[in-house]
Amino acid sequence: MVVKAYGPEYASSKRVIVCLVEKEIEFEAVDINLFKGENISPDYLKLQPFGLLPAIQDGDYTLYESRAIIRYYAEKYRSQGTELFGKTMEEKGKVEQWLEVEAHNFQPPLHTLVLHIVFSSKMGITPDQNVIQENEVKLGKVLDIYEERLSTSKYLAGDFFSLADLSHLPFGYYLLNGVGKGYMIRDRKHVSAWWDVISNRPSWKKVVQLFPYPI
Amino acid sequence: MVVKAYGPEYASSKRVIVCLVEKEIEFEAVDINLFKGENISPDYLKLQPFGLLPAIQDGDYTLYESRAIIRYYAEKYRSQGTELFGKTMEEKGKVEQWLEVEAHNFQPPLHTLVLHIVFSSKMGITPDQNVIQENEVKLGKVLDIYEERLSTSKYLAGDFFSLADLSHLPFGYYLLNGVGKGYMIRDRKHVSAWWDVISNRPSWKKVVQLFPYPI
Repeated sequence: MVVKAYGPEYASSKRVIVCLVEKEIEFEAVDINLFKGENISPDYLKLQPFGLLPAIQDGDYTLYESRAIIRYYAEKYRSQGTELFGKTMEEKGKVEQWLEVEAHNFQPPLHTLVLHIVFSSKMGITPDQNVIQENEVKLGKVLDIYEERLSTSKYLAGDFFSLADLSHLPFGYYLLNGVGKGYMIRDRKHVSAWWDVISNRPSWKKVVQLFPYPI
Repeated sequence: MVVKAYGPEYASSKRVIVCLVEKEIEFEAVDINLFKGENISPDYLKLQPFGLLPAIQDGDYTLYESRAIIRYYAEKYRSQGTELFGKTMEEKGKVEQWLEVEAHNFQPPLHTLVLHIVFSSKMGITPDQNVIQENEVKLGKVLDIYEERLSTSKYLAGDFFSLADLSHLPFGYYLLNGVGKGYMIRDRKHVSAWWDVISNRPSWKKVVQLFPYPI
């Protein structure tokens, strides 16, 4: 059964797609254009009642929320493709911890930067310099903790690539492209080395090539 | 080994504690007073570098982020106490989906209401009526989708109690107590019935009794 993955153009959906590529799961991408309101069409709302991206359809089974979908596939196909949860229960716990850090500490300030810098004109938002500065400072403090962590560990959850690292790719890409604040990664030696390793994975290069960012 | 659970007074930590009770895992609660800055003491920052609650210590193993901790214990002790992930991989996927909805749709507007209504004086915040109204509307729209979902399913992820329901208890409690907007639950028939079922579980009653809210 080929998995249908909705909205490949957008960052959160890319979290799902790079996971499907790492797990060697066949998929078909289905375009959803947010700017045309296709995310609030009756058909899409049946899949995702909040009108958000992404969602998947896998035969009769449907699922939404990118980090739920990647957990589902990483577990269902644990021994296929790249192992993305570590080997032990304790490693998996650390993967879960850093997945949550990505969702609650890394993504929110970066998401605000993306809205105010990349999409302000498309979305009719007036970029607010105070908001931009405040979120840049907030993200900087988060990345300082990453720098500390990555000085003793090659990847976030330990010495293995995992869902926790993968989950940073879609919005991390915006920081270097679009937001134009790549210095935040480059000025931190260990964060910079980590970013190079994870963003040079063939899976991620393929995703960016197949589904270019709307920048 | 007794699990040390930090900061039982606070809502996010209660997410962990009610899970430990459901899984029949022995624990010891360790007080951390945010208002005295105990969360940014050097010792606590070694456990949780962001200075946030909760964290746990289980022998040599430490973990933070409440929803990572509950996933870890629900999986490690899958057959002990209440099964909190459902039975099949597909049920677990739905548990993950609704855990993410709780984290990204339910909690953020409610957290803002709690800050502006319950903790404004303690935290030196001037309650902003526009912010309160905006977040009340936002939460109402989310609860409308819950009402729809719970009209066809006893619990969020299916016909079984799970981590997804449990995760709503700590902040849901504030909506009825402290925030004083219980009507948002009571005016929605299925949400109201669901809330009664989950909040009357012996585990949750025990948590609220052992560790009263700082309201």
